[in-house]
Amino acid sequence: MKFATRVKGLTPSDIQEMFKVIAKPEVISFASGVPDPNIFPVEEIEKITSQIINENGQTALQYNTTEGYIPLREKIASRMKSNGVKTHKENILITTGAQQGLELSAKLFLDKGDAVICESPTYSGAISAFKSYSPEFIEITTDKNGMKMDELKKVLDTKDNIKMIYVITNFQNPTGKSWSVKRRKELISISESYDVPIVEDNAYEEISFREKKRPTLKSLDKEEKVIYLGSFSKTFCPGLRVGWIEAKDSILEKYIMLKQSSDMHTNILAQMQISKYLELNDFDAHIAKINSSYKNRKNIMLESIKKYFPSSCSYTHPEGGMFIWVEMPEKINARKVLDEALKENVAFIPGDSFYPNKEVKNTFRLNFSNADESKISKGIEKLSKVIQRFINDAG
Amino acid sequence: MKFATRVKGLTPSDIQEMFKVIAKPEVISFASGVPDPNIFPVEEIEKITSQIINENGQTALQYNTTEGYIPLREKIASRMKSNGVKTHKENILITTGAQQGLELSAKLFLDKGDAVICESPTYSGAISAFKSYSPEFIEITTDKNGMKMDELKKVLDTKDNIKMIYVITNFQNPTGKSWSVKRRKELISISESYDVPIVEDNAYEEISFREKKRPTLKSLDKEEKVIYLGSFSKTFCPGLRVGWIEAKDSILEKYIMLKQSSDMHTNILAQMQISKYLELNDFDAHIAKINSSYKNRKNIMLESIKKYFPSSCSYTHPEGGMFIWVEMPEKINARKVLDEALKENVAFIPGDSFYPNKEVKNTFRLNFSNADESKISKGIEKLSKVIQRFINDAG
Repeated sequence: MKFATRVKGLTPSDIQEMFKVIAKPEVISFASGVPDPNIFPVEEIEKITSQIINENGQTALQYNTTEGYIPLREKIASRMKSNGVKTHKENILITTGAQQGLELSAKLFLDKGDAVICESPTYSGAISAFKSYSPEFIEITTDKNGMKMDELKKVLDTKDNIKMIYVITNFQNPTGKSWSVKRRKELISISESYDVPIVEDNAYEEISFREKKRPTLKSLDKEEKVIYLGSFSKTFCPGLRVGWIEAKDSILEKYIMLKQSSDMHTNILAQMQISKYLELNDFDAHIAKINSSYKNRKNIMLESIKKYFPSSCSYTHPEGGMFIWVEMPEKINARKVLDEALKENVAFIPGDSFYPNKEVKNTFRLNFSNADESKISKGIEKLSKVIQRFINDAG
Repeated sequence: MKFATRVKGLTPSDIQEMFKVIAKPEVISFASGVPDPNIFPVEEIEKITSQIINENGQTALQYNTTEGYIPLREKIASRMKSNGVKTHKENILITTGAQQGLELSAKLFLDKGDAVICESPTYSGAISAFKSYSPEFIEITTDKNGMKMDELKKVLDTKDNIKMIYVITNFQNPTGKSWSVKRRKELISISESYDVPIVEDNAYEEISFREKKRPTLKSLDKEEKVIYLGSFSKTFCPGLRVGWIEAKDSILEKYIMLKQSSDMHTNILAQMQISKYLELNDFDAHIAKINSSYKNRKNIMLESIKKYFPSSCSYTHPEGGMFIWVEMPEKINARKVLDEALKENVAFIPGDSFYPNKEVKNTFRLNFSNADESKISKGIEKLSKVIQRFINDAG
């Protein structure tokens, strides 16, 4: 029995595999990027769901259109409009999580051997989704302001197989970094000279500890080259698997056809649940609650890192999102550190799976959103000792 | 902006597009293959859902494993076992509808130019899912007992690019035909000499008007070449988008990785809803209720067809499922008939989209599962008159 060539070298995602390890109660996990379930508005959802099924059960359980539930598409469009994006419900396609947005983007744009440009490092789930379509990955170095524009421009000028630029401009997974406003404007300005779509993955935007939002690429984009991926997984509940794609008509109609043959449509009850929640509740107040909690955890984690981590480690200072990114001395292998850390019941995600090509072994990702506040300091202390041992051994 | 070559020639599915037409209350629709929502156990689902969210809300709304909710996988395995399949929960992967099972099968087995064998005609949603991977389609003629085995064997003997055989053995969409037991055994016996997986789409098995089930290919399969696709969309509620794949370990682990990058996992609340329903209710009694209602509609439709249809039309006599397949005289074009029928407010699906290669214009599919009993006869009478006009005009 022969598998397609795209399956060769496929490996299960660390993050999903880690689920099994961190299920043990004794493990202090900074691994998976899951939201804190204690903030899920469970009671509200129970009430809303009963109401939907009682009043509109047959619709909530029947097949529906691929595009998605119109009232939800309207509410998403309206939230995007209030963020400076010119859009309408017709330009919104509901997806089965933003992950499906990534999968469909690769399917829509990438033939074998076509190139996709991404940040280095970038989201591992995007790498696996794209990999199925056998593209060439081009990693562009990032600094604290985002992707380096001179490097990007050089690539765009010299390569002729580039079909897609993929970026996470806000509180990136895995680094927690955000692009400066200047860098965002530069990307849009550069994109005007090249006929390449930009896929803007904005799953983390709302999880912000800043006072003011920075403009999305989509809101700066006059030529409609940006395809925007949104998600309710960080702001609401990931188990419902609801995200969306915003794009201009001529692109979105292709996405709709590809989604149609992928899973017909997204669970319609879930779409109605979110729509009803947005209708009856103050969503921004709910998000503020999430952010206040995560900010506190981030602060505790950064303080512990500052206190315990060897000084030869550097790390990011995110202003939102769920992750801190750590760089150890070059000789230290994060996978080996993980093996030892797990013996001490501390978990994190090694950084190597966030690079499509580069072999970078000395980085790792720490999650703070779902870390137990009372254990963060303890976990970081334990982890620090393990790292220190490796540094000592390396001389 | 350039799309991938796979997107060329992509067209929206008739069935999804028809949703918009049949939404009008004046239309008598025999078009889309949706279950009757009046049979959805809405009250039960409301009760169960409240219970799940109250007792286990955080789990029901959080990320989960790609494989799916273990209690549901156990129950599916146990139902399959009682149907003669040797399996375990570890061999079940929950999918976002059986449609995702089709999409992932193509992704797993088909490189560009590889061949997939299917019945002629076959399910249009499978054709679109496979098409994204640019395969060669090989249509094998079917008679009333299933795929013609001599034709299949000849193809397997002469072509060396065949990577997958796709069949719907029970109450096929679109024809309503079922394979004889003999033909099933023959396929399994033939498959032993060739290294090609068989994807058995069994979405309709439970919607049976027969006393006795025929053995699934999976239950006959000693060499574990069969990949089984199941669905709760016909027996429970399609809006929840829950199906499954059953396959041996070494195949299923690949499917799991492909699903991981497609949508992480299927809506977990939906999985818990179905699991709880199966736990607390007599699922077979619920299915019996569906079948008794659909059988009645099928009988009314067949009687009306017998009474009104021109004698030059032939049609199938399904013993289950949701569809009757009609063949008009060769000169008559079903799309033109549809245009006229819609003017009379009667809808159906033209047959041409069920053939990946062949140009067959004179067939169409009638759905009886969601047809209003009191209007079936009226709708068939109107449709007959339209067809008769075309036959008269064709001389």
